Amino acid sequence: MRLSPDEARSRLAAARVARLATVSAQGQPHLVPVTFAVDGDHLYTAVDAKPKTTRDLRRLANLAANPHVAVLADRYDDDWSALWWVRADGTGMVIDDPARMAAPIELLAARYPQYRDNPPGGPVIAIRVDRWTGWSAS
Amino acid sequence: MRLSPDEARSRLAAARVARLATVSAQGQPHLVPVTFAVDGDHLYTAVDAKPKTTRDLRRLANLAANPHVAVLADRYDDDWSALWWVRADGTGMVIDDPARMAAPIELLAARYPQYRDNPPGGPVIAIRVDRWTGWSAS
Repeated sequence: MRLSPDEARSRLAAARVARLATVSAQGQPHLVPVTFAVDGDHLYTAVDAKPKTTRDLRRLANLAANPHVAVLADRYDDDWSALWWVRADGTGMVIDDPARMAAPIELLAARYPQYRDNPPGGPVIAIRVDRWTGWSAS
Repeated sequence: MRLSPDEARSRLAAARVARLATVSAQGQPHLVPVTFAVDGDHLYTAVDAKPKTTRDLRRLANLAANPHVAVLADRYDDDWSALWWVRADGTGMVIDDPARMAAPIELLAARYPQYRDNPPGGPVIAIRVDRWTGWSAS
């Protein structure tokens, strides 16, 4: 059954991990798991401070070329009556001004203790969600 | 640390659920959780037989416009030293000829008992994987 937008947002906001899809200028999708925080119709994720290869920054290059993103959280269980998924579709922008990164990083640190000791060093991706959708088997 | 292509394929092949990203003609990413089976450098997933709205078939329309896909499986744990993810990047095509759907559906039924009783009624998506990548925290 379809979930209401409010229910989809609520389940996504409570998930510990989601997957972020971005698209390159050439139309190639890119997919990574992300930690994140939801605030109203915005979703924030950050690039962490670990050393990164160029490929790890693909999401940032993609956003510069194409702002459309999708974020998905789901539950899998071998009992398929327990399945559900929720998705946020919207547009993302990269925030690298430290003053504007502070509030999103505070939201992330409130959810993930690791970020309290080691705040993410890279930019924040701020997603404005246009549509919350979801489905549950029961 | 980066995983080798063989290790990435092996972990993805063993996962119970993955997320499939496709891209619309307008460059909008679409993301859904999928059951799947890996056979060498091919990955198969099927559209199941439940009644579907137009939106649920977005992945098929997207593939007709843009064959590029990404498939991701990951492990999340609040202990971040246990995190890992694996990704398959490639090109997808829709198979709706019943004769050509039989072998992929057999692979799926071998992994998911539900498909033995109720084979998926919709088309199969066959993905030729060009690159297996992955990362593990430890």
